[in-house]
Amino acid sequence: MPMARMTLFYLGPEGTFTHQAAMMAAEEFHLLGDFDLAAMPDIPSIFEAVQSHKGWGVIAWENNVEGYVVPNLDALIDAPDVAGFARVSVDIAFNAFVTHDTQTSGTGLGGAQVLAHSHGLAQCKQFIAAHGLRSKPSSSNAAACRDLQDGQVALGPGICGELYHLSTIAEHVQDYDGAHTEFLIIAPRDVVHELNARAGHGQAEEFETIVTFIPLVTGPGVLANLLDVLRDAGLNMTSFISRPIKGHDGTYSFIATVDAAPWEQRFRNALEEIVDHGDWVKTLAVYPRRERPNPPVNTWMLPTGGVHIESEMADSNWREHDIVRREMLW
Amino acid sequence: MPMARMTLFYLGPEGTFTHQAAMMAAEEFHLLGDFDLAAMPDIPSIFEAVQSHKGWGVIAWENNVEGYVVPNLDALIDAPDVAGFARVSVDIAFNAFVTHDTQTSGTGLGGAQVLAHSHGLAQCKQFIAAHGLRSKPSSSNAAACRDLQDGQVALGPGICGELYHLSTIAEHVQDYDGAHTEFLIIAPRDVVHELNARAGHGQAEEFETIVTFIPLVTGPGVLANLLDVLRDAGLNMTSFISRPIKGHDGTYSFIATVDAAPWEQRFRNALEEIVDHGDWVKTLAVYPRRERPNPPVNTWMLPTGGVHIESEMADSNWREHDIVRREMLW
Repeated sequence: MPMARMTLFYLGPEGTFTHQAAMMAAEEFHLLGDFDLAAMPDIPSIFEAVQSHKGWGVIAWENNVEGYVVPNLDALIDAPDVAGFARVSVDIAFNAFVTHDTQTSGTGLGGAQVLAHSHGLAQCKQFIAAHGLRSKPSSSNAAACRDLQDGQVALGPGICGELYHLSTIAEHVQDYDGAHTEFLIIAPRDVVHELNARAGHGQAEEFETIVTFIPLVTGPGVLANLLDVLRDAGLNMTSFISRPIKGHDGTYSFIATVDAAPWEQRFRNALEEIVDHGDWVKTLAVYPRRERPNPPVNTWMLPTGGVHIESEMADSNWREHDIVRREMLW
Repeated sequence: MPMARMTLFYLGPEGTFTHQAAMMAAEEFHLLGDFDLAAMPDIPSIFEAVQSHKGWGVIAWENNVEGYVVPNLDALIDAPDVAGFARVSVDIAFNAFVTHDTQTSGTGLGGAQVLAHSHGLAQCKQFIAAHGLRSKPSSSNAAACRDLQDGQVALGPGICGELYHLSTIAEHVQDYDGAHTEFLIIAPRDVVHELNARAGHGQAEEFETIVTFIPLVTGPGVLANLLDVLRDAGLNMTSFISRPIKGHDGTYSFIATVDAAPWEQRFRNALEEIVDHGDWVKTLAVYPRRERPNPPVNTWMLPTGGVHIESEMADSNWREHDIVRREMLW
């Protein structure tokens, strides 16, 4: 490294949000080399290409509305020689496109067909209703843009306009702003090692780590005992979930995102203790710490209902309060 | 209760897997009344109908391949007067259908169009390839079956055959068996209270509870301290995830599924301690304990890679072992 020419594999067709993430990554890592972007038909092909050292990959990791992209998470847990070294965020925003001929003809769009993936159609309901469009699902938003006919409207990521030579008739037509998907950039594990060593050791930069634990004993307290080790090391977690191992119902792996790099002494000590205890441990990704909002949890942010002692309740015998029954605490 | 006639709301159109879950629930709860099943256009309409006491609802909760249905989870956390009282599991299996006229014409299907939701098409790739079919995405599997034309093939849940008067040409055409989605049956909270009181108090039946916690302080150890309380009460958890509160990045709610009912003394004590600590707590569902597999975690089940001390390593200085570097523990 730096390599003269590298391939970055993403889930196709061209014009997906993953393609947009790949373009952002190629831009961000231009110091490492020039990137050719290659669309792949599915996620297993991306892992296979990365594992056989044909290049690096981009996989969707987490969406703030839909949660984790669990099949990709499971694939990374089980991949023999792949890890993440960077994380990029893409705003899920839709533009509305027509062909240039439709644009120049100047005819109205009332009653026209609108094409997108069914998820895309569901995210742009207000725009579709406001223009009286008729929904027609496509296999992907990118395919909707690629195959667009005169007189039709397609909804898709902004990059589809230039990519498929379409006219943009409206920007940001999604019902809700603020949705974003985070992607991991993955590479063979020895490459990730080298990149992290160059970027991080002995420098001021801060890192995050995604790590998987599998306790080989089960029962009450297994998870609490595991997390006590991380707490006692003073480690901050920003995400935590349990998943069945390779889909075996009733088995557990735990996936934690931690504000530290595994080569920091306090994290290393915690990992040693967990391994010594007999648990299975694997690092899935180590990447530079993201700028993240860290808002205080104010009571106005709390969901509707629920039980929470506020000052006016603290003195009363709140255990007898009606809300305890309503919220079914007992 | 029992009511003469009840409505059970589910995500339409008719013939979805949610419809199948609703039919199973109506069968399971026939002692409580006769159920009319009503298809709804989206999840918010289902919550609205249940909250205004028009009936009960069925929502998808968790799939063993895709994980939690996070928008439904977020909706239940924030619903002012709704909780789950039952959980049903539906195998995600696809049948292939044609119209009766296509069936009797006896012509081959080679090159025919095959219709399903794009997820359904992705789950039946082998069948589609083996018969040389051309994929055409629909807005849902049920819509594909409902709108099926002569000469086309539709893929969908088994119930679509009878529902839309179609001929079943092949059963279980999905690439992988074993996928299943679990659904929660939801009702107004006072109804859930009454149902649970009748089903459970003082009886031998065992329950599970899904509960949400929001610690109002943040920082290292917040989650470990919370789980210590559950551990010290001897409570077994079967699922655990973190979620941002209503999508506010950087805030945390924790959703745990616990093998106990909130009216059991040890769980009640734990909940009291957590509320006393100032955390926000809300029970999302209480339902009879499912029969679940509880396999031991054998080393052959472990994912590829990772670090795990086996007997032959325990005596050696495993900290210097190559795999520690490869798995990026430090």
